[in-house]
Amino acid sequence: RAATDDPGDDELYPTENFNMITKGVYRSAFPKKKNFSFLKKLGLRSILTLILEDYPDQNQKFMEENSIQLFQFGVAGNKEPFVDIPEETICAALTVLLDRRNHPILIHCNKGKHRTGCLVGCLRKLQHWSHTSIFDEYRRFSHPKSRSMDQQFIELFDVSRVTFDEDWLPD
Amino acid sequence: RAATDDPGDDELYPTENFNMITKGVYRSAFPKKKNFSFLKKLGLRSILTLILEDYPDQNQKFMEENSIQLFQFGVAGNKEPFVDIPEETICAALTVLLDRRNHPILIHCNKGKHRTGCLVGCLRKLQHWSHTSIFDEYRRFSHPKSRSMDQQFIELFDVSRVTFDEDWLPD
Repeated sequence: RAATDDPGDDELYPTENFNMITKGVYRSAFPKKKNFSFLKKLGLRSILTLILEDYPDQNQKFMEENSIQLFQFGVAGNKEPFVDIPEETICAALTVLLDRRNHPILIHCNKGKHRTGCLVGCLRKLQHWSHTSIFDEYRRFSHPKSRSMDQQFIELFDVSRVTFDEDWLPD
Repeated sequence: RAATDDPGDDELYPTENFNMITKGVYRSAFPKKKNFSFLKKLGLRSILTLILEDYPDQNQKFMEENSIQLFQFGVAGNKEPFVDIPEETICAALTVLLDRRNHPILIHCNKGKHRTGCLVGCLRKLQHWSHTSIFDEYRRFSHPKSRSMDQQFIELFDVSRVTFDEDWLPD
């Protein structure tokens, strides 16, 4: 049912920096309790987190209650000049994103800016987006803290290293 | 088929300020010729334009070739302090957006910032988004030219005036 067809509904609080990337793939900042009713409406099958830390209890509980699977690909917050995004981790995360059995899926890190922005940028490369468009999108969500090292990471990322199962590719 | 499963594909040039709003609803700046191959991949059924001017020949041709229907709800570029967004036009545009027979649909104006931002903001109200999230999104796409009159229009917009056919509401 549409979110639009129930005027009695309470106000919804999307996660900060929320966005739909492509059908069945969302991005945002870290989900907090006040965002849960919004996230519930997305009917998520999985969450892909890029944080290193253990997932908080209330988030784990929310996921159990809604049968949401957690994929954790921990990446250290990439504060310049100590940027060191592990390419293998991004490859593994992309493999999860390219399997529609995991959709709808929400990607998040802490702010939904840098680590998430790098992963989304690499996904866009797989979709053959021009670098101009990829960087525009990266900056739109990392503003006002865009990092050129992140954009360089995206530019240098070798999409041919990403493995996926042809049978389960998203439409 | 997935945009990702054809590594031989040429680079794609999404329209400026392109974004997926919700399943089957996209937004962007005015589509130019170099964007056509990208737009083709979206499998659009319709385009909703908020510009007043006649649609250029090359765009009309692209639409004919791809059986895309045009909905034109002309609104004058809302430059402050002469903002006068006609509420009835926004209502009519929303009725089109709330009918999934028109999906996938692309909303655009000139820059995809102000007129498009107002329409998307009103759509978010129908989805019960909090004003914080609506304005965050509005500003993300209108940056660095956000207009407070646009945000006020969204805040004052009365969603109960929008009519739609229950049977064709999007999921």
